[in-house]
Amino acid sequence: MRAGIYQGIGKVTVEDLPVPEPGPKDVLVRNVRAGICGTDLGAFTRGGDDVGIFPGNEFGHEFTSRVVEVGAEVEGITEGMRVWVNPCTSKRLGQGRSAVEVADSAGGLSEYIVVEEAAIGYNIHPLPDVVTFDEAVLVEPFSVAMHGLNAVDLTKVRRAIVFGAGAIGLGAVANLKAVGVEQVIVVDVVPHRLEVAHKLGGIPFDGGSGDAMAFARETLGTVRNMNDVELPDAQIWVDAAGAASVTEQYAAHGAPGSTLISLALSANQVTIPQAAFVLNVLSIVGRAGYEAKDVDQVIGFMAAKAYDATPVVTHHVPLEDLPEAFRIALEDPTAIKVVVDVE
Amino acid sequence: MRAGIYQGIGKVTVEDLPVPEPGPKDVLVRNVRAGICGTDLGAFTRGGDDVGIFPGNEFGHEFTSRVVEVGAEVEGITEGMRVWVNPCTSKRLGQGRSAVEVADSAGGLSEYIVVEEAAIGYNIHPLPDVVTFDEAVLVEPFSVAMHGLNAVDLTKVRRAIVFGAGAIGLGAVANLKAVGVEQVIVVDVVPHRLEVAHKLGGIPFDGGSGDAMAFARETLGTVRNMNDVELPDAQIWVDAAGAASVTEQYAAHGAPGSTLISLALSANQVTIPQAAFVLNVLSIVGRAGYEAKDVDQVIGFMAAKAYDATPVVTHHVPLEDLPEAFRIALEDPTAIKVVVDVE
Repeated sequence: MRAGIYQGIGKVTVEDLPVPEPGPKDVLVRNVRAGICGTDLGAFTRGGDDVGIFPGNEFGHEFTSRVVEVGAEVEGITEGMRVWVNPCTSKRLGQGRSAVEVADSAGGLSEYIVVEEAAIGYNIHPLPDVVTFDEAVLVEPFSVAMHGLNAVDLTKVRRAIVFGAGAIGLGAVANLKAVGVEQVIVVDVVPHRLEVAHKLGGIPFDGGSGDAMAFARETLGTVRNMNDVELPDAQIWVDAAGAASVTEQYAAHGAPGSTLISLALSANQVTIPQAAFVLNVLSIVGRAGYEAKDVDQVIGFMAAKAYDATPVVTHHVPLEDLPEAFRIALEDPTAIKVVVDVE
Repeated sequence: MRAGIYQGIGKVTVEDLPVPEPGPKDVLVRNVRAGICGTDLGAFTRGGDDVGIFPGNEFGHEFTSRVVEVGAEVEGITEGMRVWVNPCTSKRLGQGRSAVEVADSAGGLSEYIVVEEAAIGYNIHPLPDVVTFDEAVLVEPFSVAMHGLNAVDLTKVRRAIVFGAGAIGLGAVANLKAVGVEQVIVVDVVPHRLEVAHKLGGIPFDGGSGDAMAFARETLGTVRNMNDVELPDAQIWVDAAGAASVTEQYAAHGAPGSTLISLALSANQVTIPQAAFVLNVLSIVGRAGYEAKDVDQVIGFMAAKAYDATPVVTHHVPLEDLPEAFRIALEDPTAIKVVVDVE
């Protein structure tokens, strides 16, 4: 089979590997689509040691697949089933690989992988017929967004501000609109991303064009903190950008009782006044990954056609052109999610 | 009547003022005990503009009282009732004073104050007979601690680390032990404070004596984050100190899924790596003030003798020596809560 291999900083290749063999508790899946994620790009540009992507590893962790072989002891999973595979639990833990290595080296960019100890709801989520592979390739980043959002009681959220209109930020917008949030401002600086944010129901704001906080106060209305300062009336902020300025702006402009959901990985240091958290009753909640219920919620939204996620996928690249997929993801200003057509 | 007056940086006096007159919806209370709080000390040392303590104001917001006159339209409150007054709601809002000014200038250091629109559970909490005024003077800081702790699901907390053994930090220790938390490490550098922390059931650690994180790993056991780093197994951290190092240590050593409850006001800037929140699934939750249920919980603990809070009060000073109370609170290394005997 053909497999995308991480070779170190600046180099990815496609190699021939033997098709892996599933044990009695495992299933073999053929991958159909795999998205290139910020984690993959980080490994490509800065090295992958901290995220468990080592030279020589198969990689790719946002993928969607078809079951081709089912171990004798596996229950409820059948050949031909269209599935989303949870990369975090796709291999048994405790075999000398950390959880983050298991997830980030799941091998979504390989034609075939074995999902160990396969079970529905654990590492295999069947896809309803109406959910296309081109939508399902976004289940992973959209579930990251959903897991972050589920850190708060969404029934109390009426207005939100999302920073960063990449796949996770756009997933946050789509999921927030799907649960009935009235207004979702999306701040980014890339025009094409803001267009997609608008398609998903967000209120786009070009962060390079002016003062996002003034726009937010005008658009969402205001509340006052205990010192009578007017602040944008948003119950949640979502950081899917990772710029230090997002957390710093939140410390200055977050409404009392609001929460910043931090989902972005960056190497930035953030400097905030310690007292802001107490005086303005702010919360920062970091989240990574997702649980089965987040995944099921996203697949449910897609199946119910609560939104059309496909504009988030901006490019399709065949597996043999994997290096080109990385080039596009890094250099093309119109790129949001670059998807590798593994099949 | 005699009233403690804030005169500006470095100056507090005791003045003669007319006894205020309650309206038909108000009650007049005679204050018995009033604690000097960090907010009062901050006004004394740096100015009180940001906390609503202006020169010429009555002040003092941690106090306990006896009802001496009840307005004709007030229900359920009777003369002679021993009460704790909620300073935040002790006056009607919307009279040109911000919420923080109403709270911090409540006049606990005056012999008499009017509690406007007095109602039980709103701004008046009756004290059970078994709760002494010397305990009840701690209801305010202990309720701040309780409100912070109630930001998380305490039934899931088995181990905690509290930074700062002032009245709020000690309140956190007492309340955590009262709800059944198994181990509560308390980090401070003042021997007398650590002794009181120990009396309240905490595990004292002198932050000047070594590595608090190594002590916490040894004492509480460890969990691993997704990169297999061992971290102290504490579900919550409480910042009742405000040193930048507390938040910075949390960003480096917080267990996945844990929460730092930030209760301390300081002028410190905190610098943290943005990614730590996401990779380690950390939360910082700021809290200020309290709600009626927090207050009732604390009074309930005191009434049930779940703890003896009185060692937190280290000094009693008569009202006429108010400047001396400030001197002790600022200079005496054995001072935790300095209480003014207003009556």
